[in-house]
Amino acid sequence: MEDAIAVIGLGNAGLPLAAIIPDNGLSVVGVDIDPERCDLINNGSNPIPEEAGLEELINRYGGNKLLATSDLEDARNCRAFIIIVPLFIDQSYNPDFSLMEKAVRSVGRILKKGDLVSIETTVPPGTTESTIRFWLEESSHMSHGDFFLAHSPERIMTGYSIYRLREFPKILGGIDDESGFIAFNLYNKFIPNLKLVSSARVAEMIKVMEGCYRDVNIYLANELYKISAELGVDFSEARDNANHQYCQLHQPSTGVGGHCIPVYPWFLIKEMEKRELFKHARMLRISREINDDMIFYWAERILLECLKVSKPLDQIKICIKGITFRPNVRELYHSRNLALAKLLKEKGLNVYAFDSHLSKEEVKANGLRYIQPEEADLVFDSFNLSF
Amino acid sequence: MEDAIAVIGLGNAGLPLAAIIPDNGLSVVGVDIDPERCDLINNGSNPIPEEAGLEELINRYGGNKLLATSDLEDARNCRAFIIIVPLFIDQSYNPDFSLMEKAVRSVGRILKKGDLVSIETTVPPGTTESTIRFWLEESSHMSHGDFFLAHSPERIMTGYSIYRLREFPKILGGIDDESGFIAFNLYNKFIPNLKLVSSARVAEMIKVMEGCYRDVNIYLANELYKISAELGVDFSEARDNANHQYCQLHQPSTGVGGHCIPVYPWFLIKEMEKRELFKHARMLRISREINDDMIFYWAERILLECLKVSKPLDQIKICIKGITFRPNVRELYHSRNLALAKLLKEKGLNVYAFDSHLSKEEVKANGLRYIQPEEADLVFDSFNLSF
Repeated sequence: MEDAIAVIGLGNAGLPLAAIIPDNGLSVVGVDIDPERCDLINNGSNPIPEEAGLEELINRYGGNKLLATSDLEDARNCRAFIIIVPLFIDQSYNPDFSLMEKAVRSVGRILKKGDLVSIETTVPPGTTESTIRFWLEESSHMSHGDFFLAHSPERIMTGYSIYRLREFPKILGGIDDESGFIAFNLYNKFIPNLKLVSSARVAEMIKVMEGCYRDVNIYLANELYKISAELGVDFSEARDNANHQYCQLHQPSTGVGGHCIPVYPWFLIKEMEKRELFKHARMLRISREINDDMIFYWAERILLECLKVSKPLDQIKICIKGITFRPNVRELYHSRNLALAKLLKEKGLNVYAFDSHLSKEEVKANGLRYIQPEEADLVFDSFNLSF
Repeated sequence: MEDAIAVIGLGNAGLPLAAIIPDNGLSVVGVDIDPERCDLINNGSNPIPEEAGLEELINRYGGNKLLATSDLEDARNCRAFIIIVPLFIDQSYNPDFSLMEKAVRSVGRILKKGDLVSIETTVPPGTTESTIRFWLEESSHMSHGDFFLAHSPERIMTGYSIYRLREFPKILGGIDDESGFIAFNLYNKFIPNLKLVSSARVAEMIKVMEGCYRDVNIYLANELYKISAELGVDFSEARDNANHQYCQLHQPSTGVGGHCIPVYPWFLIKEMEKRELFKHARMLRISREINDDMIFYWAERILLECLKVSKPLDQIKICIKGITFRPNVRELYHSRNLALAKLLKEKGLNVYAFDSHLSKEEVKANGLRYIQPEEADLVFDSFNLSF
């Protein structure tokens, strides 16, 4: 399909994007390493049931205007390549570009003169114009200018992605003016609310800053929650009444999980540390560390709650209700609720887990014992922070 | 005037409150230690010209339905006393209650059975129900229950206070249910958007949390500003495009000044430190410290900007344009712009100041030399962070 757009990566971010493009008349070749997922999509089945509105689009376009394939060769005739593969951080909190490099170099090898590459994966600011450009130039044997390169960060949130793609402002920046202009004209065909910014680097920074805002404000909510508990103030009541147009206190939690918010601040922290500018990212680092440490606070709260159960501590069946990283998703990546359950287990407590989105087997596969909340002596509702 | 409400303290927060009450049919006895200010008000003159809408109210009610006096005896027949005097922090960042104690005890000495006292000054959570109740009981020789006591934090912002009193939700909480109920019925006569919360302590916490939200988010903006500058990203462009309903990045600045935001976080920090819970207020403390330290960042930026002026460093006339704590106020309390100018002076630089809201004499009275910006070699616009 010559006019088709290639979307590389049909995960939680890539698939919603790939699915809305045909709704605007264009065809998509969707490339994913998982052939089973591709078969599902081509048969019109939606692999992300919690994503509102996706089912209908996959039903309608899967196998025709949205052709899923695990062979990048099928996208050889495309003139635009949107890369939206995961970027993880390693154990030292540095970005692990291995999947990204593989995807970019593969695209580079089939790139033709005049083609456009757009990166949607959230990356450290500067990555598209430097690292990704370098990989593309090396693998395509072309110089940029022969191809065009832009960054347009995905702003999806599982469950709301289709809405976000259709309504939310989408940011786009080129590594130079021509790249920005060409990418804008393409995206404009399927993104109604598109904003061109001055560079790919600014586009990258915008997305990373959003994550930092969320992480810091969730940590602030956690800090004020702890202080409120100490002062005998109902944080929830105080927060409801404090919030107005100039005050947007967030919800407290057991920490911050998922692929996005706990990852992005590290992009800036690590970059500043490389430059020996530790002082420039102090709050980002502290927020990250103390959000992760919230499980120790909650472990103590749960232990103290056991004072109310008239059984020996080792016989109290403690149920962690909710172990995914947030309500209404099936994802466990960096879930602090899961980490909390495991922490209690390590401490030798008689801990079990329950999650309305996970089966008994799925709970067990995560190294935890399963229990129905009504069978437990103590239930900690990790999403509502209540017993 | 028996039905009049006494407002103790006619400063930037007290006077707008005292002035809107007569607009709702009630009379006010306004008490202030400054007799000249009282005369001004009674003559219908507005001592806070930058406060939109205040002039008209003082014109209309000053000297009649708003009777200003420096003698608390004139309020003896009032049945409700609203106390709204300043609370500062001392050099160790602990609250300095001396003005507050004096005002509360004075009111206590004329308090009658069944009277209501409401505290509007922002105080550490728990102050009204404990310290202020104690002072009132001791000075009135009554027990609470004989009088009623509530907290309703002022939410004014100089320039917008009348609007805020008329439109903004106003929080109120009693030290017990009866106090809350009685205070609600009174405030309801002149505050259109009134919210009763479960206790005075919650009402106190709400106001303090708002300040913490602002302080932390201004620090976050400052941190992301510094990182953006390092990465060659225009923070202003990135911020404009990052902000949407779920992201409210604030404006960067030379720090946070004024009587409110730089003060309130200390209420929680110091209370947690008293309890040896240093870990519970880590972010609040760091935000406070590093917001104050932003002047060192800007001092270096200004010094480096001198590289562009082809004169010996000691001959470069540097103008700090804007030394009040924020635009469009005449206040210098904890102004970081003023602190920046003084810091440069201490470092031996040839520094001058200009502020469109201050006269030459007022600038000099603050220990700085005055200059018109066009006569300087280098102008730092402290409100716009530009040269």
